[in-house]
Amino acid sequence: MSTDQTESQFEQLLLKKFHRLIGQLPIQVAFSRDGILNSNDTNKESIVIRDRRALARMVLDPEVGFGDSYMEGRIEINGDLVRILEHAFHAIRSQRKRSLSNRLFSRWLRYVQGNTFKGSATNIHHHYDLNTDFYKLWLDSRLVYTCAYFPTPSATLEESQEAKLDHICKKLQLQPGEKVVDAGCGWGALALHMARNYGVTVQAFNISHEQIQYARLQAKKEGLADRVEFIEDDYRNISGQFDAFVSVGMLEHVGREHYSELGHVIRRAIGNSGRGLIHFIGRNRPEPFSAWIRKHIFPGAYVPALREALEVFEQQDYTVLDVENLRRHYAKTLEHWLERYEQAADRVSALFGPEFVRAWRLYLAGSTASFRAGLLQLFQVVFAGSRCEQIAWTRAYLYAAGPDLEKESQWTPARF
Amino acid sequence: MSTDQTESQFEQLLLKKFHRLIGQLPIQVAFSRDGILNSNDTNKESIVIRDRRALARMVLDPEVGFGDSYMEGRIEINGDLVRILEHAFHAIRSQRKRSLSNRLFSRWLRYVQGNTFKGSATNIHHHYDLNTDFYKLWLDSRLVYTCAYFPTPSATLEESQEAKLDHICKKLQLQPGEKVVDAGCGWGALALHMARNYGVTVQAFNISHEQIQYARLQAKKEGLADRVEFIEDDYRNISGQFDAFVSVGMLEHVGREHYSELGHVIRRAIGNSGRGLIHFIGRNRPEPFSAWIRKHIFPGAYVPALREALEVFEQQDYTVLDVENLRRHYAKTLEHWLERYEQAADRVSALFGPEFVRAWRLYLAGSTASFRAGLLQLFQVVFAGSRCEQIAWTRAYLYAAGPDLEKESQWTPARF
Repeated sequence: MSTDQTESQFEQLLLKKFHRLIGQLPIQVAFSRDGILNSNDTNKESIVIRDRRALARMVLDPEVGFGDSYMEGRIEINGDLVRILEHAFHAIRSQRKRSLSNRLFSRWLRYVQGNTFKGSATNIHHHYDLNTDFYKLWLDSRLVYTCAYFPTPSATLEESQEAKLDHICKKLQLQPGEKVVDAGCGWGALALHMARNYGVTVQAFNISHEQIQYARLQAKKEGLADRVEFIEDDYRNISGQFDAFVSVGMLEHVGREHYSELGHVIRRAIGNSGRGLIHFIGRNRPEPFSAWIRKHIFPGAYVPALREALEVFEQQDYTVLDVENLRRHYAKTLEHWLERYEQAADRVSALFGPEFVRAWRLYLAGSTASFRAGLLQLFQVVFAGSRCEQIAWTRAYLYAAGPDLEKESQWTPARF
Repeated sequence: MSTDQTESQFEQLLLKKFHRLIGQLPIQVAFSRDGILNSNDTNKESIVIRDRRALARMVLDPEVGFGDSYMEGRIEINGDLVRILEHAFHAIRSQRKRSLSNRLFSRWLRYVQGNTFKGSATNIHHHYDLNTDFYKLWLDSRLVYTCAYFPTPSATLEESQEAKLDHICKKLQLQPGEKVVDAGCGWGALALHMARNYGVTVQAFNISHEQIQYARLQAKKEGLADRVEFIEDDYRNISGQFDAFVSVGMLEHVGREHYSELGHVIRRAIGNSGRGLIHFIGRNRPEPFSAWIRKHIFPGAYVPALREALEVFEQQDYTVLDVENLRRHYAKTLEHWLERYEQAADRVSALFGPEFVRAWRLYLAGSTASFRAGLLQLFQVVFAGSRCEQIAWTRAYLYAAGPDLEKESQWTPARF
């Protein structure tokens, strides 16, 4: 085994193979144990692989191998991480073949991380029951952990998360006194917003203990506890009758094999006369979700093609009224999160250690790159039963500055 | 065989069976040779079956049997035809079983009306090469034979067809000097509107000889012949490079088995950097298209579920940016058409005879009822390639009264 700074023949071979695997990149990829490039072109962005194990793992499985090695500090990135990943994703996109190792690992993850009641509980606990203080370091003040809606690209994250909550409420055409069920409610920002600003009552479900505790506290603080009930339970246990169903950022955790179950749950909740909105990360076409993300960040997650997601509605004879793609808004949201995250990196490190810092940096940067490159999309789908009467004539009211002239029943938000 | 006014035992049996087949209707269904009901409740809406053949055919196949018998005058309708059909469709919807006869006939139609190059030519000729004077009797002045976009429910058909053309051009974000291909251009209204008001050049395809002739004449009259080329050819023969692809009301004639072919045609035309819009009649979930309509009105037609239509884009890795459901607008459009059609019934009869008048009345009324009952939907899907840069930040510009502030490249329409 070579211990000096130059590559051994074996390492050269691995490096060559790795280059072949990932294809042409406008980035220097090199092997260097001290992480310093022996190159004249020091301005060029580079990926520097620091040990043979990292190199071998990347050849075996470029995705998980890279992720794990980066996380463990066996790989150094010089330059803009998001841009480098975006380049890599474009290169991989044109190839579209996954290594045997990745395919096997991906399948194994699907097996061990299945979204049964117990499986979902374990999977959700892994991510969302991390200390809430950690999320406070880089999310907005309401702790909205889903794509924001930026009225203009220069709007703040704070404004844009509020705009997103309003955009959803408008799409649902909420009327005072209506009953809404929120499946997968996070820290409760949407449920509280709906009750506070649109006069509805809400039952909000979530299996993350940490999030539900926080949400209940917020409801109490705001005096909304009588109108927003936070329930620590699986969406499959939703019971009762509602006017509207809403779910923001949960479909990704439901798992492909549970879509018809979700359809049945919605049917039970809103029947033939209700309407609803599902907000989720999607794709142009079906593909397995990143094995590295499933391994370290989101166990049990699956990102469906839009067509796959529509099965939820089709099987129940629900009508799709509106689909909006907010891909660019998610790239922008993630830019904000990543910036705040980097500013808080020392505090994150104090909480969970440096390996965690690197893993989550890669997750946030990789997601930003995926939305920028169009490998991920963000869909908001509005749907309704065949007897639903809350269907707007046009979508103009969503964009009207003042009160809607077409629909006089529009409620003027009031603070209770 | 009984020849008096009362039902024979056999006829009573058939009537009973028919009632069982279609389920509960809030309409009187009776057998009466002179078409006059022997009932006290003369205000009630009724379907009166005038001969045993009609009754037998309706038992064998409620859909085609009813359609054919109505067309031939063997059935009398007392009351609002659209409303009666809407009731019937709701009743049938809850049953969802088709007769053996209907299933076999439907399959046979699919076979003989296949959309090969030659088959499409025959199918399209059947409907669209009817005398243009006929369509002038009941369409708007531009002869737009697809769903209009009513800014308000009380807008005129004329205004709303123009609004539809603009809505599509805005969704496509057309820029002066761009090249657009229009697949299935009808009498050319959209192609001419795009060139006249948005400064683009257009190649417009259609295999209806009658429509292409008319469209060319219009282009000449308006001095647009150098910027709009009307091509009498199949969409599968589209060649050349374009910035945008648009197709309004053609997908219904493409046939389910040709969706990937259509995807390839779009890819060839706009590649990875273009965008497009497809406007089509769709459904909540897959179902065979009315056999009666295929037999008499639209041979070779198929109305896909939204999910099925998305295959066109998915296979090409196109991103769906926006889906809008204009179901209620199509019901309204059809109400306008039907009203104009009834006013021109005598002239239609002079052109094609009374049976034709009844067939087309049933088609227009039945379509109105289908859109009202939610058995049919109207989808506009905006899509783009992964390298497309014409993606608006939000959809607000579609609804802005004045020039768009976000996107300064928006072109002010000018008359050339």
